[in-house]
Order: sequence, then C-alpha cells, then structure tokens
Amino acid sequence: MQKKGFLVTFEGGEGCGKSTQSQLFCQFLKQKNINYYMAREPGGTNFAEYIRMLVKDVTFEEKSPLSELLLFEAARADVVDKIVKPMLENGAVMVLDRFYDSTLAYQGYGRQMDKEMVKLLNKVATEGIEPNLTFYLKISPEESFKRKTKDKLDLIELSGEDFHKRVEFGFDCIAKENKNRYVIIDATQDRDTMQKQIREIFMERYNAFQSK
Amino acid sequence: MQKKGFLVTFEGGEGCGKSTQSQLFCQFLKQKNINYYMAREPGGTNFAEYIRMLVKDVTFEEKSPLSELLLFEAARADVVDKIVKPMLENGAVMVLDRFYDSTLAYQGYGRQMDKEMVKLLNKVATEGIEPNLTFYLKISPEESFKRKTKDKLDLIELSGEDFHKRVEFGFDCIAKENKNRYVIIDATQDRDTMQKQIREIFMERYNAFQSK
Repeated sequence: MQKKGFLVTFEGGEGCGKSTQSQLFCQFLKQKNINYYMAREPGGTNFAEYIRMLVKDVTFEEKSPLSELLLFEAARADVVDKIVKPMLENGAVMVLDRFYDSTLAYQGYGRQMDKEMVKLLNKVATEGIEPNLTFYLKISPEESFKRKTKDKLDLIELSGEDFHKRVEFGFDCIAKENKNRYVIIDATQDRDTMQKQIREIFMERYNAFQSK
Repeated sequence: MQKKGFLVTFEGGEGCGKSTQSQLFCQFLKQKNINYYMAREPGGTNFAEYIRMLVKDVTFEEKSPLSELLLFEAARADVVDKIVKPMLENGAVMVLDRFYDSTLAYQGYGRQMDKEMVKLLNKVATEGIEPNLTFYLKISPEESFKRKTKDKLDLIELSGEDFHKRVEFGFDCIAKENKNRYVIIDATQDRDTMQKQIREIFMERYNAFQSK
C-alpha cells in the first residue's frame, strides 16, 4: 500500500535501548521541524495501552500463546486504524517503538508458533502497511540482561534465556529477509553514537523517499 | 478434527433465550448423568471473561471493528485451549452459549467485515474444532427487542436495528450452509416447548453419534 507518510520502526530484544533511542530520534525530528507522531506497541491508544497491561501482567493467569498473539493483533489493529493510517495519510513521519516484526520474532520464533500464521495475522491487523525504515538495535540477550535489575522484569522478560535467544535469531532472520528497509545498529555502543548513526541513516533514506 | 466428546452450541440474536435454554439443557444432562461442561462465549476462563467485559463495556472508547474481532478471537483461543479441547478429549458433552458462528454473524454480516477473513480467524482460534450440533434459536430483532428494557442494553445491543437484521440474515445463511449440524428452534415459542424440542433432538443426535 503506497502512503504519503514515512513509517520508521524500532525493533530489537529486551534492553536494547529502543525506547531511549526512539525518543531521542523524535527530539531530532522536532528540531528539524518534521511533522511526526510517535507510539509504542503494544499501545498507542487507550484501548491498546489497556491490552498492553493485560499482556504484561505477571499476576494474571497464564494465557494460551495463541490468545496472547491475538491480543497483540487486537491492540495493533486499533492503533493502526486510529493513529498509524491517518498519520501516514497526512504525510507525517510515524515512529513506532516495535511493530509487527516484534510479533514474528517473539511469537513466531520465541514462542515457536506457526510463522506463516503469525505473518497472516500481522497482515490482517496492519491492513498491509509496511515500514519504510526499520532500525534493529542488536544486542545479545546475555549482554542485555546484565544491564537489567531482576525486580523490574515483566512477564515477557521472565520467559527465559532460550526464549530470548530464539527472539534474537528471529530478528536476524527478519533483517535478512527485509534488507531494503532494515538497518542494524550495534546496541552495545554508547547512546550518543547509536543516535548519531540513526539520525544520519534516517536523513539519507527520508530525503531519497521525498525526492522520488 | 475428530474428537471423542460431543460439542453442542447455542446460537441466535439478542434476547432469543440462549442462556436460559442452554442452562435448562445442562440440568437435563445432569439428570441423565451425562458428563458435561458449559461455558459462554466470550468467556469461560478468567481471562476470557475479562475480555468479555472489555468488549461489552459501553463506557470504553470505541474500538475499531477489526480490533473487536481480534479480541473475540483472543478470548476464544483461550477457552478452546483450556476448556473445550480438554473436555472433548475427555469425552464430555461440551455446551457453549455462542461459538464462532456468532462471530461470523455479528462481525461478518452485522459489522460487514470481510467474511472470508472472519472465517479464517475463526479457524485459527478454534484450531479447527467444529460443533456436532448447533441450536439456532430464531427470533426477529423486532420481537426480541419488545422483550428487553432499554436501561439494560449493552454496547452490542445498542448497535441499531439494521445491524441486528443483518445478524439475523447471517445466522440464516450459516444455518443453510451447515445443514448437517444446524437445528432451527422457533424462539417465539414458550420456554418449556423450546426446551422439550432441544432435549429430544439432542438425544436423537447424541445416540446416533455414540453408536457410530
């Protein structure tokens, strides 16, 4: 689907620095006077934030993996319909902290669900919208978990080391299959170095997109 | 998918008497000493009941139709995985107050979403499980709404007369397409007459199923 706006997504495993980097990136867009909007997934609408809470709640009974997947897609459908689509139609730069690649990496590779089914549900929920540019902030689970304190882990973060290794492998595969939009950022670098790379690559791609 | 148990579903528009009839039917199964389990959809597990509340909540902001559909499927996947599948594998009579036909009737026909997509999502969430017998309690929306008091209507019941006419048409079509498992019960009859018909038809079908 061809849209007037430009969709930038940030992807990666737990603790890769997506949230920080996407927020710093939005500051840059603001300085540049570029019309943008940012949301995190799952989330972005009241309803989707509510589902986010439901999915991450450690105290809630265990959901079946398929149920978890469908919940993510329900939240996605809401934010795509109410925010992503209108913003792109309006020509904005839409920034997403996670999008459907995360679902394929976490549910498809991590939880080992049928990848074709995950792809199909992703397509249904996004109505075929694809990112123009994806920053994959790559860090090994071992390195990432060194940086986190245990009392702050949520349900997904508690899923075990093997799970997170499969997720990392998933992102690696998705990056290979989507070379045209994927850019891998070494997330073991310091914050400012990463942000500098992100800004440079974005400007290059965004200018090329606009001059088309 | 061939299962040892027997799945009976109750379907129909608002106010058709499904809940009453399915409960009376379960009393009958108990008297007959038939191993059974009953659940309503959406619902049946804590998690699915929570989603039920979310879907029916009038005070919540409007969800996109696709998001609503995916929520129903998330609740369904949970109850199928935790209750319906184990019960059928255990040889029980599983009774459901609504199942995936309702989703096709309400979302596909009522909300006019892509019916093939709804069917596909139904299949994903149910993992291919199909009812052995479906009682469609048929009553026109006009007749049904005469019986309800306005202050007790929820979000779905408030969707308007045209919507409910499309839902009725939907159930009619689904019944025609699934003649082998569908039995239409005239829901303008009194409670006991309906229940008598339901019990007789069930025993006939259940005995035939068991002697196979």
